[in-house]
Amino acid sequence: MSKWYIGIDLGGTFIKFGLLSDDLHARSIFQLPTPADGGAAIVEQMARGVGQLMGSDGIDHGKIAGVGIGSPGPLNLSSGTIVDSPNIKGMQNFPLRDRVSAAVNLPAVLENDANAAAYGEYLCGAGAGTRNMVMLTLGTGVGGGIIVEGQLVHGSRDAGGELGHTIIVPDGEPCGCGQRGCLERYCSATYLAELTMRAIRQGQPSSLKAVMDARGAINTQDINEARKAGDALAARFWDDAARHLALACVNICRVFDPDEIVLSGGLSKAGEDLLGPVRKHFDAMNWTLMPNQTRIALASLGNNAGVIGAAGVAWRASRQ
Amino acid sequence: MSKWYIGIDLGGTFIKFGLLSDDLHARSIFQLPTPADGGAAIVEQMARGVGQLMGSDGIDHGKIAGVGIGSPGPLNLSSGTIVDSPNIKGMQNFPLRDRVSAAVNLPAVLENDANAAAYGEYLCGAGAGTRNMVMLTLGTGVGGGIIVEGQLVHGSRDAGGELGHTIIVPDGEPCGCGQRGCLERYCSATYLAELTMRAIRQGQPSSLKAVMDARGAINTQDINEARKAGDALAARFWDDAARHLALACVNICRVFDPDEIVLSGGLSKAGEDLLGPVRKHFDAMNWTLMPNQTRIALASLGNNAGVIGAAGVAWRASRQ
Repeated sequence: MSKWYIGIDLGGTFIKFGLLSDDLHARSIFQLPTPADGGAAIVEQMARGVGQLMGSDGIDHGKIAGVGIGSPGPLNLSSGTIVDSPNIKGMQNFPLRDRVSAAVNLPAVLENDANAAAYGEYLCGAGAGTRNMVMLTLGTGVGGGIIVEGQLVHGSRDAGGELGHTIIVPDGEPCGCGQRGCLERYCSATYLAELTMRAIRQGQPSSLKAVMDARGAINTQDINEARKAGDALAARFWDDAARHLALACVNICRVFDPDEIVLSGGLSKAGEDLLGPVRKHFDAMNWTLMPNQTRIALASLGNNAGVIGAAGVAWRASRQ
Repeated sequence: MSKWYIGIDLGGTFIKFGLLSDDLHARSIFQLPTPADGGAAIVEQMARGVGQLMGSDGIDHGKIAGVGIGSPGPLNLSSGTIVDSPNIKGMQNFPLRDRVSAAVNLPAVLENDANAAAYGEYLCGAGAGTRNMVMLTLGTGVGGGIIVEGQLVHGSRDAGGELGHTIIVPDGEPCGCGQRGCLERYCSATYLAELTMRAIRQGQPSSLKAVMDARGAINTQDINEARKAGDALAARFWDDAARHLALACVNICRVFDPDEIVLSGGLSKAGEDLLGPVRKHFDAMNWTLMPNQTRIALASLGNNAGVIGAAGVAWRASRQ
């Protein structure tokens, strides 16, 4: 009898639900709003979503092997607890895994949301078929997810995989984490826009000044468009981000020798406009001892990576 | 019936042999010269050593569960082959694992020598009792060995774990590997001495000039002694190495969140004279989001880490 796995992806605004089959096909993805009043209401909403998922799909409870929940952190994975959740109220020291498991009467497993998204790409997306894969999510910050021989790297206190907070420029830009020169400060969508705006405010000439004046801010898409229209400042900052990202990719290759590095998040929507410069700098910086065999590729599951990966974590847990 | 595991550590000058018990006690470590005439002679010498080990210890062949061989690389671990070995003649594309296995009639497993040493410290040395451990060997170069949840990180083409060739200074010192700014160029014993000598040759004043003039070169012990006697140049270069090493340790914590980082190799012989400054810089650079729980410690098995770890790899293989 083939089994099914339920994925739940907890976000600040929506909770996503989806089904994954034993042979790794995802289906029936939908979302419900995240209740504003915290813990118990969130568990109830998750139980409601699980019920809807089974009902609309006509899948018996007995055919579901488990539930995987992706959640923002910090988490304690062994106890299945949310330690803290700045963006979702009432979730401090909340035993989400066991509460959901009891509410839906199914085994449940908890995973960090960034790791779940990486695992989704690994199982069903851009990384399908790989053994070793690293994902960098270039959004508000830079998130990381590392898969070594099919297993997510968590570390001894579930604080591993924080590639966005590896230092790539000694004594570089100060980061909110207390370090200086973190990857996140050079390659996240947020900071690329911020660094560019700072230069414009300091008087450096750019066609983007008009956009800033009109809208109050610019985003990475504006920078890419200005760059392609010949704006020198935009070109410089875009290329800088690509160069720092390439450096991170070289280091990932030295440490993990992965089959693939997957780029996701807002900045990755630029597609080949980002990949091209990243690969160019990577080739220039990379060692010459061996030819490069690690692919640098774009994520393929978009915003569904997290919910698919959460179900994937349940799929994996049922096999161990 | 308790079993035993044989470790063999292949070096350019000597081959080391040793026994490891089921409960991880090492004994009977000795060495034989490495034959200069390559492949077949090396296999013969290994078989001779294995015979001596069993004979002198009075252990029946039937009580040996397996042999682990640590070798310089590059290796192909899945085929058990030495791809190339610049320091040992006649070992190109040599199927060492299977040849040794046939010669001693025991299952054999091949491992990179740096990884074997890290695994030895993990099982029986400074890292005993940890789940996640990273070792940095500060010698001629900077070697790395990474253990995640009890497993060595190899990567998809056995080229992972090369922490010495992660870039820590963008556009920094050129490295023999073709990259610039590799960790190895700032923290290996060889390069710390080289950088210091370069500054002295360029005319920077130091008490070490007299040592250089007398002996033609200086080593890291000279630099440490000069530093402690008040030499400003020596103090600056020593502190620089410690600072770059601390940066590498911060990055290792972000990626692996390990229980322990173990320092080994020539430079680590300075003990607290190295650990003190590394910890000071680490604390100053490390993030403030969580208190640091990763220990930075010295290796404890010295030159026996490799042979013990090679046996340990056989111990582990017998459990999988």
